[in-house]
Formats: sequence, structure tokens, C-alpha cells
Amino acid sequence: MASLKRLLIGSPMETKRLKHEKLPKWKALAVFSSDALSSVAYATEEILLVLMLFGTSVFFYSLPIALAILGLLLIVTLSYRQIIYAFPSGGGAYVVARDHLSTTTSLVAGAALMIDYILTVAVSISSGVAALTSAFPSLLPWKVEIAIALVLLLMILNLRGITESATVFAYPTYLFIISVLVLIAVGGWQLWHEGWHGFNYKEHASAEHFFTSGYGMFILLRAFASGCSAMTGVEAISNGVPAFKPDSSKNAAITMGWMSLLLGTMFLGITILAAGFGVTPMEHKTVISQIGHHVFGNSVFFYLFQMITMLILILAANTSFAGFPQLVSIIANDRFLPRSLAARGDRLVFSNGIILLSALSILLIVVFQGETHSLIPLYAVGVFLSFTIGQSGMIKKIWKEKEKKNIATLATIMTGTFVTGLVTVITILAKFTQGAWLVIVAIPLLVIMFYKVRHHYEKLGQQLKLDEKEWREREKIVKPKVIIPISGVSKVVAQSVQYARSISNDITAISIIFHEEEEQKLRAKWEKFYPDIELKVIYSPYRTILSPLLDYINDVEKETKGSPITVLMPQFIVKKWWHALLHNQTAIVLRFFLTIKKDVVVATLPYHLKE
Amino acid sequence: MASLKRLLIGSPMETKRLKHEKLPKWKALAVFSSDALSSVAYATEEILLVLMLFGTSVFFYSLPIALAILGLLLIVTLSYRQIIYAFPSGGGAYVVARDHLSTTTSLVAGAALMIDYILTVAVSISSGVAALTSAFPSLLPWKVEIAIALVLLLMILNLRGITESATVFAYPTYLFIISVLVLIAVGGWQLWHEGWHGFNYKEHASAEHFFTSGYGMFILLRAFASGCSAMTGVEAISNGVPAFKPDSSKNAAITMGWMSLLLGTMFLGITILAAGFGVTPMEHKTVISQIGHHVFGNSVFFYLFQMITMLILILAANTSFAGFPQLVSIIANDRFLPRSLAARGDRLVFSNGIILLSALSILLIVVFQGETHSLIPLYAVGVFLSFTIGQSGMIKKIWKEKEKKNIATLATIMTGTFVTGLVTVITILAKFTQGAWLVIVAIPLLVIMFYKVRHHYEKLGQQLKLDEKEWREREKIVKPKVIIPISGVSKVVAQSVQYARSISNDITAISIIFHEEEEQKLRAKWEKFYPDIELKVIYSPYRTILSPLLDYINDVEKETKGSPITVLMPQFIVKKWWHALLHNQTAIVLRFFLTIKKDVVVATLPYHLKE
Repeated sequence: MASLKRLLIGSPMETKRLKHEKLPKWKALAVFSSDALSSVAYATEEILLVLMLFGTSVFFYSLPIALAILGLLLIVTLSYRQIIYAFPSGGGAYVVARDHLSTTTSLVAGAALMIDYILTVAVSISSGVAALTSAFPSLLPWKVEIAIALVLLLMILNLRGITESATVFAYPTYLFIISVLVLIAVGGWQLWHEGWHGFNYKEHASAEHFFTSGYGMFILLRAFASGCSAMTGVEAISNGVPAFKPDSSKNAAITMGWMSLLLGTMFLGITILAAGFGVTPMEHKTVISQIGHHVFGNSVFFYLFQMITMLILILAANTSFAGFPQLVSIIANDRFLPRSLAARGDRLVFSNGIILLSALSILLIVVFQGETHSLIPLYAVGVFLSFTIGQSGMIKKIWKEKEKKNIATLATIMTGTFVTGLVTVITILAKFTQGAWLVIVAIPLLVIMFYKVRHHYEKLGQQLKLDEKEWREREKIVKPKVIIPISGVSKVVAQSVQYARSISNDITAISIIFHEEEEQKLRAKWEKFYPDIELKVIYSPYRTILSPLLDYINDVEKETKGSPITVLMPQFIVKKWWHALLHNQTAIVLRFFLTIKKDVVVATLPYHLKE
Repeated sequence: MASLKRLLIGSPMETKRLKHEKLPKWKALAVFSSDALSSVAYATEEILLVLMLFGTSVFFYSLPIALAILGLLLIVTLSYRQIIYAFPSGGGAYVVARDHLSTTTSLVAGAALMIDYILTVAVSISSGVAALTSAFPSLLPWKVEIAIALVLLLMILNLRGITESATVFAYPTYLFIISVLVLIAVGGWQLWHEGWHGFNYKEHASAEHFFTSGYGMFILLRAFASGCSAMTGVEAISNGVPAFKPDSSKNAAITMGWMSLLLGTMFLGITILAAGFGVTPMEHKTVISQIGHHVFGNSVFFYLFQMITMLILILAANTSFAGFPQLVSIIANDRFLPRSLAARGDRLVFSNGIILLSALSILLIVVFQGETHSLIPLYAVGVFLSFTIGQSGMIKKIWKEKEKKNIATLATIMTGTFVTGLVTVITILAKFTQGAWLVIVAIPLLVIMFYKVRHHYEKLGQQLKLDEKEWREREKIVKPKVIIPISGVSKVVAQSVQYARSISNDITAISIIFHEEEEQKLRAKWEKFYPDIELKVIYSPYRTILSPLLDYINDVEKETKGSPITVLMPQFIVKKWWHALLHNQTAIVLRFFLTIKKDVVVATLPYHLKE
């Protein structure tokens, strides 16, 4: 076990090695924007999928929707640039809300962020696998298995601790940016020459009743909400300001600008190409792969493009493997989550958080069968909810801390807050029945859980504090009463008796028999070896050992008030693992129930078998 | 937990309630023949499925194959009737071979029987679900899940112990017999009126090269081997002679005759109807359901017939739940299997055997995706192997025990042995690549496992026998050295120290810290409460607790040779189950590794949390 762990995860690392690498802008862009940029691989498709409910005749409306999302992106970018300048120390929505809003608000943000991180893994990996299967449809039957394998791969890599993260991230991110820009350029040129042969506003004037019907408006809103999945991850840079080279705020703000520009260009370009080429969402071919196929034909470039898309999506999933364990460790340090999530493992990473994230995202992938568009409705709610809370906290912070309040800054962030808050509400309403309700239910449940955990730890601390009174009481020494359960007279019993004699003079052996006639034989043998130790024999007509033993201990407790009871339990230590299956596992069950049900000390005596 | 167990399984039962109900013939027929009779639900289909490899033109040959199987059934019935008269005490192939042939032979029979029982569950349940989905194709996507649910249902029922078995068995068995006989009668009448519109020897004279080609002969043999699955379970009556009312031998022999007559009639009738109606095996409709549909139309009788078929197949699976646990308990009593399989649970049933059977048959159902015909090739080998070994043992027994040997009896059993031996060989050869090889591989592996288990128990007995020398050595009393791992000073530590003082004077507390600066604070607090107890502080740069602790114990062992080391471990006993997740599970891991890796006593001190 230990050696397998070392092989997969590597040797342990000292606490002192924990330090931070300072990143130049071009590397920081790669590290912080893979999540945001990769979403162009599915956002356009999600818009079209919703519009398709009304029919392909309204596909043209993907363009105005994309423009609306670009507007939203602009507002959010401006808001976060102000936040970067105002608070260069970074900090996510949970910390900001904890420090400047209320505890409950911070926990709502924490729950929303946790869900987001899990969904980022599930959505990105599912979408990455879709990129793969669009190129190689023969892999379709195994898409869930491939997705699970990828999550496990990320889990192992992250349990090792990814040290050269920045450089490793840079190549695929820039490859993806370049290839999408090439795709847009070549595709645009083709569109210019071949002419717009896709969805056209004039042609589809028949779709006029789209706007007049309430259902049409609802579809539009829902498509908009789906498209907002393009914006997931744009806040990443504002949380990571300290990782930038100085002057870090300025560098971060510039990088944020570049990222939004790239994201906007890529998203709009892909949406225009989809409309221009008349691409329709298909079950087993992603929209972006259809555009790729249209532009690059069946050439090697198409396959390369699909592989690069898959790679960036895997990197996007990987960002959660940094963010989620960090977040839960902060929440666990605030004692709202189990302590085990706060501790770094021997490779300096938050191992339990990584494992928890992997398990939950695999669960989502299995439940939703690796379908990106089934997961999307769950995604946007949490993202925009945490945007809103995070920005609100910043407003409060600026209000409290800054002497000279900059009205422009405040106004920009307030606009951002208002718009993201509105999008949150739109998303909840438009996507409620598609799965958004799950998130709406999960967040309060998580918050309740947080409080329950905290309550337990608080009560625990009070209970365990050692005081003078308790200490004085505990100074009273009483010899324990020792009980040795036996089933015969063997070397194991001899060992137990020897140990019992070394710790007490008050020893009783107890044997539980299933057939009354066994008693005499056992007593005879016992008298031969241990005439000085009392043997109690109990006949159990129901062939259970536990309940007569518990009854007996009850009686002993009543008799001898105050003196602690110690039960000796032998445990066979076997030479080969499968030998463990050959020994009555009664001892393990007994030990478990004795410690849980009674106030007795259970001493386990190892008996090492020679073969 | 305990109350859930009681709800599902019922209250415990006394050992004395273990007694036998004596059955009249009509009830005994129902109890012992559900396995054999139910196989007509799939045997014909298995023959046709093999013939289909050559083409439907040779379907007519299902009739001569069925006749050959009837001949085989006649020989085996006669042989077992002689066995019933010769040995009214019953006993399966394992016991007979153990007592009258060699140990290895008996273990081969034991392995073959174990595999048979597991396959009986897997095949019968899969076939039962096929009966259900033939009537209700909408249930097809869940066929594996339904099969698993049925196995679990049988498991729970059998863990309760089925008391009114005989009567419960009687209704479905007779319903099945009657409905198949009605099916044959009505179907025969229809065939008479409509004329033979199925497979015809003359029409298919073109299939002449079937016999001249080696492949054709091979197909015929393979179809025969598949059809032999009709004979599974015919030996059941001979094992259960003591359950019959006196004169038990005579009654059992009569019942055996009736069972074979019914089995033969039903099997032949169904095979003739399949040929006459020209039924072809289909993926999602069983052959017998197609006949049922042909005869009863889409009326309620068709659905009733399918439900009754399913019911008898579930009952057939249930017979394994009686046989398998009984068999493994006999083998475990001979110490060839873990002792835990020999013990009756508190409801007087062999609980572990029942759970093992359920787990293994569910595994088979999942691996073979609940496809009856994928499981059949594995089935016949074990059945006929145990027939052969069982009958051989009987011949040996008669030879040894009976003064006046009855030549006719011996000749009959010998013929039976020879024929079943021949069928075993045919089955292995004809079905080898279809899965029979699995059984051929599994049986020797099981036999090796049996011997390894026995070897371990023998060595164990020798090791544990208490002798004078060991006893004298163990009379020497040395106080234990007590080690208390701590992480701070709390009420829990006070409790541990109090206990430690009650059992020894040689006490050391040990604390493993992750940051060097923690030491001073801890020492100050410790000195305040326990200045007389040594505190050892170890800095662990890799944030692991286990290895520094093991190293320390190594050092202590070297220092103080001979005196036993006792490690005290507190265990929080929580009020709500989920609180257990909130406490560092380090203690559990430590306890595990300490008992396994070092020769130390681990004493678990329960600390009951109040809330």
C-alpha cells in the first residue's frame, strides 16, 4: 500500500517547501484563464441547443444573445479590474463575504463556490471528452469511462502536487488561443467567399411570432442564461493578484483586460461562424467540432484542433483541483467543515480536498452520463451567485476601509453587482426545471451542514477543556477489573492471562457456549492451568456472543461501582493477508460494539501467527 | 443497525427449534423439483440457439436431440432410484465422495457443486427476468437491476429463514406444471388443426451436408450439451430422502419417477411445439414465451403464463439458497473453508453462506449482463461432473458395505455413471470456448484453495496448543510500559493518564508536532498538570504521525527488553453517526498499523461525547 502510494504520488515533501512562484503576465494569463477561455468550446452550442426548442428558424438570434453576453462580460471585467486595484491581496467571494458581510452570506458564497468547482470539473471533462468523441466517434460507448479516467488522472497528478504548473499550463492555453483565432480567420475568409449560407434574419422573418409569444421570450432568456456559461472563471485573475510579478495590481488588470478581449473575440467569432455555416447541434458532434470540420475539412488540422480543445478543457478542470481544496481548507479552518479537509498531506497538497472533489465530480459525471448540456443548467446559478456576493463584499469593504471613496470605482462595481445579480435571478427562473433547482436546494442544505459542523466543534472544545476539578478527580487511582473472553485454553489465552496479571489482580475469564454440554470439559481444562482465576460460563441459546457479554458487563458494572473495566481481546496477526479471512472476525465486531455501547477499555493483544 | 437487521430478518431463534418437517409426496415433489422442472423454460431455447449457428434449416434436429436427452434422463432416473433404495439417509456428492472415494475427489465434487448452486441462481433468475421482459419489453433496460433486486429479495427471505417452505413451494410449482401441460394440450390441438407449419425434415433435406460435415456433428453435440441443462437439479430428491414421510425410500423413489415423467413430458412437448410452430429464438422474446403467445394469443392467459414461469424460476433459484449454505457449512466443518461459513446465524440459517451465494450470483449476473444463454455453457459441466462423482461414490459404497450385492442395482448405477461421465466430457469439449473453460479453471483453483485453508487451520491448531513450557513462561509477570500519544492537554488526556497510572508506573506521553514552535507551549501546559510524567515531543517535517511513532516504539523496544508495551488510544464515542466524520480518523489508522506492525498492546479508551 505504502509503496503504491509513493509510486503514484511521490515521496513526502517538507513543510518549508511551501512558497509562491511569481508569474510574468504571459504565464499568468495561461494559468488563470484556461477555465474562462475553454468555455468557448461549449457556450455557443448551449445557446443553439436552447433555441432549437423553438426550431432552427430562430438560430439567427444566437448573434444578439452573444452580443448581450459580451456586454455582460464588459461590465464584469470593468468591475473586477476595479477590485484588483482596490484590493491587491486577492481573496475569493467566501473570504470577502466572511470579512465584510455576514457569516451566512459567506457560507452561501462558499457553498456556491464549492458547487461551481465541482461542476467546472464535471462540465470541462465532459466537454473535453465530447471534443475527443466528435473526432473519434468509435470512442462514444466509453465516454463516461474516459471522463472518469481523466478525473482520476487529474486527481493523481494533483495529489503529487503539480510543481511546474505555470509552464505546463502555458503551451496548451496558447495553442488553443492560436488555433481558435486561426479557425475564426480561415472560417471568416471562407464565409466571405462562399457567402452566408446559414441562418439569416430575413429568411426567417416567418419566426416573427417568436417575440410576440411569451414562450419565445422565455426561450430567449433561457438561451441567454445558457450562453452565460461562457463567463465561468473570469474572476480567477482577481483572486490571484499576489501571484503576479510587481507591480502586481497593474499587471493583473492588464492581464484581465487581455483575457476578456480574447474570450469575447473567440466567443463571438465562433457564434458568427456557427450561424454563417448553418451549424445545427448534433447528438454526437459538438458545434465547435462541426465548425472545425467545415473549416479544416478532414485534414490533420481538424484532429489537432480537437485534441487541443480537449487539452484546454482538461486544464480548465485542473484549475478546480487548485481552487477547491484551497477553499474547503479555508472553510475547514473556520471549523465549518471536518478538520481533515484543512490538513495538508505529505506532498504539501490538501489531499482530502482533492479526493473529495474527484469523488463528487465523478458522481456528477456518472449521474448525468457525461452530457455537458445536462450539467450546464446547474452551472451558471452558482457562478453568478458567487460573482454577486463577491462584488457586494467588495463594495462593503471599500465603504468601510477607504478614506477617500472613489465614486467611479464604486459605481463600476455596483453596476457589476447589479447585473450579475440580475443574471442570477434570470438563470434561476429560466433554468429552474432543467436542474437549477438542484443547486437552489443544495446551497441551503450545505449552509445548514456548515453550521451543524461548527456547532459540534464548538461544543467539543468546551467539553474537552481540562479544568482543575476534572484533573483532581482523575488523580484517584483504582485498579481495573479485567475481563478475558475465551473460547478454550490456548497459548493465546495464556498470553492474555499473563498481561491481565501484569495490570490487575481482579481478573475474570468468560466463555460463551452454544451447547450446554460443553461447560464441564472447559472447566476441567481451565482448572488445570488457572485454578486461581474465576471462569464464568454462559450458555447462549441464540448463538450470539455479543448480547450475553454485554449483559455480563452490565452486571459487573453494577457490582463494582467506580472501578474501570478492561476487556482483553486477542487479535491474530497473520502472515498472509488472506489468512485474515480464516479467523472468526467475531473479535472485531465485539471490539466495535464494546467501545461504542459500554464504558469499557478494550485492550487488543496481538498474537503473531508463525505461518 | 441492529434494529434494521431485526426488521428485515426477524428476531433470533433458539438452537432447539432446528428440526425437520416430514413431507407427503405431493409436497415433496414441489419442494425438490422446482429446479429441475423450471429448466424447461430455457432448455429448448438453448438447443435452438446452438442449431441456429448452422441455420434454421436444421431446427428439425431439435427433436432427435430432445429424444436423446430424454434417454439420458431415463438412465439417470433409474440410477438415482437405485441410490434412493440403497441409501435412504441421503447425502450429496461431496459427502458420498468424502466418505467413500478420496478427499481430492470429494473436493472436486464440492467445487463443482458450489459452482452449480451459484449458476442455478444466476441462470434461473436471469431466465425468470427474461420471462418477465418477454411479456413487458419496456422493462428490458432494467433487466440486470431487476435480477439483482430478486437475488437480494431471496437473500433477505432466506436470512429470515423460510419456515413454511413446503406449502409456499407447492402452489407455484403445481401452477407451472398445470399451465405447461395446458399449453402443450392446447398447442397440440392447434398444431393438429393448423398443420405442422414449422420446421420439417423433408423440406430441409437440403441440410443433408449437416451430418457429413464435421462442423455439423460438432453443432449437434453442442446443441445436445446445451439441452442437457434441462437435467439440472434432478438429483435433488435423492439428497432429500430423509425429508419424506415413511416409508421414505419408497415414497422418494415414486416421487422421483413422477418428477422425471413430468420433466420429460414438458420438455418434449415444448420442443415439439417450438418445431411445429416454427419458433425461432429472438433476442428479447424467449422461445417459451413465443409458444405461449402463439397458443394463448395476447390474452390474459399469456401474461399469467409468463408470471407463473417467472415464479417457478425464482423458486428454482431459491433451492440454491437452501443447498449452498448447507454444502459450504459441511465443507467448512471439514475445515476446508473459513469457519465463519460453518456457523448458524441467530435465525438458525447459515447467514454467511447465504450472503456469499448472493454476492457471487450477483457478480455472475452483472458480468454476463443477465443473459441466460451466456451462462448456460458454464452450467452443465459442473452438474454432470457432480452427477458422475456422486454415482461413483455410491458404487464404491455399495461395494464396501453391502454383503449381498445386487447386480442389477450396481449395473444400473454404473450405466448412469458412465453416461453422465460421457456427457461431462462432451460438454467440456463442445462448450470449451463458450465459457466451459472457466469452470475447468475454477474447479482446480477452488480445490487448491480448500487445501490451503485446511493447511492453515492445521498449523494453527498446533501453534495454539498450550503446553507446560509455554504456561510456565507466561507465569512471569512484568509491568507494562505505557505510551500515551497526545496532541494537547484535555479531559481526554486526563482520562488516559488516570488509566495508565492504574496499570503501571512506567508512563511516557508522546506528541508529534508539525511546526517546531509548538513544542514550548505544549511543554508549559504539560508541566502544569503532569510534571511527574515524561513528555516526549517529536517534530515531523513530513506531517505524518505514523512513522515517527513507530520509530519511537522501536527505540523503546530496544531499550527495555522483555517488558510489554501498551499504547493508550482514546476513541470519541459520538452521539450522532455523522459526528464520527468530524473527528480526525488518525486514531483508527494508528490502531490498525500498531497492532499489525508492532508487538504492542493497544488499549482503546472510549470517551463518550455528551453532544
